[in-house]
Amino acid sequence: MTAAGATPTPAGPGATGGGKNVTQPWGTERHARMVWARISEPEDPIAAAMVADHGLREAIEQVIRRIGIGRSEAAQRFSRRAADIDLAADLHATQVCRSRVIIPGDDEWPDHLADLPYPPWCLWVSGPLSLAEASGHGGADAVAVVGARAATAYGHHVAADVSAELAARGRCVISGAALGIDGAAHRGALAVDGPTVAVLACGIDRAYPAAHRGIIDQIRGTGAVITEMPPGSAPTKPRFLHRNRIIAALAGGTVVIEASLRSGALRTARIAAELCRPVAAMPGPVTSAVSAGCHEAIRQGYASLVTDADEIAELMSPMGSNLAPLKGGETRAGDEYDELTRRVLDALPVHRSRTVDDLCRIVGLAPAEVLAVLGALDVAGVAENRLDGWGRRRS
Amino acid sequence: MTAAGATPTPAGPGATGGGKNVTQPWGTERHARMVWARISEPEDPIAAAMVADHGLREAIEQVIRRIGIGRSEAAQRFSRRAADIDLAADLHATQVCRSRVIIPGDDEWPDHLADLPYPPWCLWVSGPLSLAEASGHGGADAVAVVGARAATAYGHHVAADVSAELAARGRCVISGAALGIDGAAHRGALAVDGPTVAVLACGIDRAYPAAHRGIIDQIRGTGAVITEMPPGSAPTKPRFLHRNRIIAALAGGTVVIEASLRSGALRTARIAAELCRPVAAMPGPVTSAVSAGCHEAIRQGYASLVTDADEIAELMSPMGSNLAPLKGGETRAGDEYDELTRRVLDALPVHRSRTVDDLCRIVGLAPAEVLAVLGALDVAGVAENRLDGWGRRRS
Repeated sequence: MTAAGATPTPAGPGATGGGKNVTQPWGTERHARMVWARISEPEDPIAAAMVADHGLREAIEQVIRRIGIGRSEAAQRFSRRAADIDLAADLHATQVCRSRVIIPGDDEWPDHLADLPYPPWCLWVSGPLSLAEASGHGGADAVAVVGARAATAYGHHVAADVSAELAARGRCVISGAALGIDGAAHRGALAVDGPTVAVLACGIDRAYPAAHRGIIDQIRGTGAVITEMPPGSAPTKPRFLHRNRIIAALAGGTVVIEASLRSGALRTARIAAELCRPVAAMPGPVTSAVSAGCHEAIRQGYASLVTDADEIAELMSPMGSNLAPLKGGETRAGDEYDELTRRVLDALPVHRSRTVDDLCRIVGLAPAEVLAVLGALDVAGVAENRLDGWGRRRS
Repeated sequence: MTAAGATPTPAGPGATGGGKNVTQPWGTERHARMVWARISEPEDPIAAAMVADHGLREAIEQVIRRIGIGRSEAAQRFSRRAADIDLAADLHATQVCRSRVIIPGDDEWPDHLADLPYPPWCLWVSGPLSLAEASGHGGADAVAVVGARAATAYGHHVAADVSAELAARGRCVISGAALGIDGAAHRGALAVDGPTVAVLACGIDRAYPAAHRGIIDQIRGTGAVITEMPPGSAPTKPRFLHRNRIIAALAGGTVVIEASLRSGALRTARIAAELCRPVAAMPGPVTSAVSAGCHEAIRQGYASLVTDADEIAELMSPMGSNLAPLKGGETRAGDEYDELTRRVLDALPVHRSRTVDDLCRIVGLAPAEVLAVLGALDVAGVAENRLDGWGRRRS
């Protein structure tokens, strides 16, 4: 089996015809997988069972010739589509939009997609980025950034911001090219010339949503646009949900920036959690409906609350590496002193003076204790002994 | 020992003089505790040890007469203040501002304050609310709502909102009367005529911050204003921190609405967690510095993320009671159908028609499957069989 390589080439020579006129076996594994992707919808359990039981080429033959299991009611699912098979046309369409088809075994195939119960049969890829390279070892170097289409300005800002930071560190930002958070995530990665992958729910030759044609073309130029749907496929509702599993499986972890309670992004997050990949969610105002899904994911415990790229990187890294800096807040004057010293310091006036007796009464300490503190503060240049008592030195 | 009762009365008759002129033992436990509160700062470990070792009256005698342990360097802490003791004046001040002094053993004393390593010696209380009643059994009925002084409009809104909802359910809202979240929490409770308690860091006869004099007076009229500091005490920095422990211990649980990483409200939350009381934090935008403390508390695991009063009430209630309604998002058309039906429904046009053959090809199902779904949808009045195929019925 030849790996498809990292440059946009058609899936390989030697492919012939398709549909009912095919009289020869499906030459290559690559072509057979392309045909099977055309015949069955993603995650179809019957399609998977047929291949598991009979092998890919035999399953195709059965569907096309309506023999064997192909006569069963189950296989009737695919018979209507068998008439549409036109491998030559698919190969042409793949080539025309300068994409390639990759399958398991290829150098570029991300092996961790096998974690999915129903991995894609093949992937159409367009763009210079190698998928396997972009997602690193088991996806560790890639982060899925997903969220609401109806995102707020806050969500857009945060998504672009963290995606840019993650991409600047060489982490590939994977998303779905949708309106809202997805688009902002891709834009953030592109802004720092970082790696980014868009997973489509339609054919590689289409750009959906139309408003994102520009951004999708830009990713084709520098990153990778991928899909499991054959050329020409429309982005139907169920296909968006199937698509989400690829986003979740491809990345080492998933971040949800804004998501309503019914958001598809939450589904992506749940799939990632089921695949034992770390899931993060960014909080937002409790008054915002598009943050409700993030909060619920955190409350249910399958997502960790994160607030910046550092915390995302920590969560998506092997334990003990890429630790986020501790958040202790800003340093304030007086931080360097112990509690007794702070008590005396707080009671020490700047413009007036106080006797040791007064200070003892105010702070509730013994004269010896107060004098010890005052002595240390005097040496440190913070307190001074004036004629009428002690005061804080004017800087 | 006489309970101070729920009406504002002075601490009881029979008190005499004070200071160095005292020649008789400290008549009542109540008076002795008032004197000790004047002598020692809250949470002073030496003061607590002296009382534990020698009893309250003997400790006072030692400090005043500088005998026994009172001569030791440790007890020197309190000797300067012994000169200030004037029980008669304190009783008068307590009476003038129509407050009362309660101590352990009183009906109104919240026994769960004993959970604190250093409980207050006594409490000055002003207002018609009984503290023990307001905080219910072990504080279960009370919720501490705390947060940043420099709160945002969002924080003010949310704090007032959840406090009003909690108070409307009869839960007492406990806070510190500070600017920002504290004030908004009290206002929310007052707005629904609900119970609320303000814990001050200064004497009961003072109102701090001055801008909140109105709100503090209002709480005196309907709820309870309390403090462990004797009349006239100034609100110094350390006293705010001591005060926070009373807020945390008095309530059944603590909610932080907005808090910067260095906020005193976070300290209150940590004390509540150390007392094994549930702690909740409301998230906010990750771009807001005054939500950073809430997020960090959730990330560190000592606070649970909550988004509304329902979730707070659930967290602060015995396991299994007051469960918050499940958040599943809004119901959408098609929710009642199984996956196959939804696939067919999505492919069913409203203004055009599609043949069964077309539908099979589009959704990737067998004719028998599609026909079964169409039949059911027809009966349900959703699909209709037109001359040229099937379509979605126009409602």
